[in-house]
Amino acid sequence: MTNPPSKSHGRLSISANLTPRDLMDESKRLHGAWCAKIVTLFPDVFPGVLGASLTGRALKDGLWALEPIDLRPFGTGKHRQVDDTPAGGGAGLVMRADVLGRALSMAARGTPDDPARWPRVYLSPRGKPFTQADARRFARAEGMTMLCGRFEGVDERVIEEYGLEEISLGDFVLTGGEIAAQAVLDATVRLIPGVLGNAASTEEESFSDGLLEHPQYTKPAEWKGRKIPDVLLSGHHGEIEKWRRAEAERLTRARRPDLWAEYLKRKG
Amino acid sequence: MTNPPSKSHGRLSISANLTPRDLMDESKRLHGAWCAKIVTLFPDVFPGVLGASLTGRALKDGLWALEPIDLRPFGTGKHRQVDDTPAGGGAGLVMRADVLGRALSMAARGTPDDPARWPRVYLSPRGKPFTQADARRFARAEGMTMLCGRFEGVDERVIEEYGLEEISLGDFVLTGGEIAAQAVLDATVRLIPGVLGNAASTEEESFSDGLLEHPQYTKPAEWKGRKIPDVLLSGHHGEIEKWRRAEAERLTRARRPDLWAEYLKRKG
Repeated sequence: MTNPPSKSHGRLSISANLTPRDLMDESKRLHGAWCAKIVTLFPDVFPGVLGASLTGRALKDGLWALEPIDLRPFGTGKHRQVDDTPAGGGAGLVMRADVLGRALSMAARGTPDDPARWPRVYLSPRGKPFTQADARRFARAEGMTMLCGRFEGVDERVIEEYGLEEISLGDFVLTGGEIAAQAVLDATVRLIPGVLGNAASTEEESFSDGLLEHPQYTKPAEWKGRKIPDVLLSGHHGEIEKWRRAEAERLTRARRPDLWAEYLKRKG
Repeated sequence: MTNPPSKSHGRLSISANLTPRDLMDESKRLHGAWCAKIVTLFPDVFPGVLGASLTGRALKDGLWALEPIDLRPFGTGKHRQVDDTPAGGGAGLVMRADVLGRALSMAARGTPDDPARWPRVYLSPRGKPFTQADARRFARAEGMTMLCGRFEGVDERVIEEYGLEEISLGDFVLTGGEIAAQAVLDATVRLIPGVLGNAASTEEESFSDGLLEHPQYTKPAEWKGRKIPDVLLSGHHGEIEKWRRAEAERLTRARRPDLWAEYLKRKG
């Protein structure tokens, strides 16, 4: 890279407020690194795990940027309330459309409308399960906005009004969308060029070819009476590749009949 | 609760070292709260998001405990190396069985061998997808140990030797198991009695009955020309329940044919 991004792109903890920001400043940032805007009641939990390791170094180096947007200042009334009781009754609280709308409109400033260039995602167990293909799609965009729900979820109208894409991390219930947002971010950011030191390793991993990864071994050659399979120490690259492919197929067939069926279909 | 757990159970950041701890102390802790032991190269990223909100309050109140175990002191040689090149060649690094074994043996002290009482989990994209049923099973145990992988994963022999259960968060690749561990913890801890303020809300949510959750609405009654559906404001509880059930079925059928097929099978 001839022009390394300036330090100013790796801004760790900018919280939004209700005052419009300098638009020049905004477009300068967008011109630079891939950017995630996160609408959340807990802006302080970001970057969290993403501040460590390779994703953390890349954040500091300005290869991507993170802008948590604190939902609280957009709340209504003296107590900046963000939720209210569900229409029709029931347990829990629902996040208000007007409050979320104000935060999302603020997040939208300086970002392209085209969802291919800037996906807008609501993290929810009702969504389409997140996959590696989504991570690739998000990494190809200029950035993305994520809305983290809490309580019993968000007013449906905000999903419709902003055309939010509902994405689920899996078939389980979290106390909020923040951990899901971090998982989506981690899977996405590591695909941004330059973030991983060793680009080769992203290609060999699970799901790149629709199979689970083969078993791995390293030194020592023997541990607690368990030996590394002979073929891996043979130096015969063709045999090693054959063994790994067979193991990947065996594991996928045994553990994930769904992936195995798709794999067979693709192979024809 | 007549005997609230003492403050000492909510220990946020105890790192393991190589010196055996007082066993009495160990059993006192186990006698108390549900406990998660996390073997990781990044102990400082815990509790992360789990330190906020209801899970954070419950942690401080001693309703559950967290013990991150730093993998680094268990490394080999002067540099406490934890990984080495893959046997048979290939990109990346594999975490060593001997290093992980020492950390897992330390984590095992004072915990029951029975995996029903104390699940031992390796977070890996090769694993069985994590579901709400797993969260319920983990919450019923006395605690659990989670191994967070990094790089190209762990030496297969450590999975065999310790009978680790491989669990995947979904079909995507993370830079490490830490975010996955936090997701599993969040889904599990919120099921521990007393952690959520409102127990009723855990029952109504997505997946409890195998359907996605119906849309939610709250005040204002009209927003940007979008109204709350009339039935929800009718006060007719029977009609509201019917509408919600129909919406949950419609969403599940449209978005998750897999869950829909299972639901129909269960209904007979």
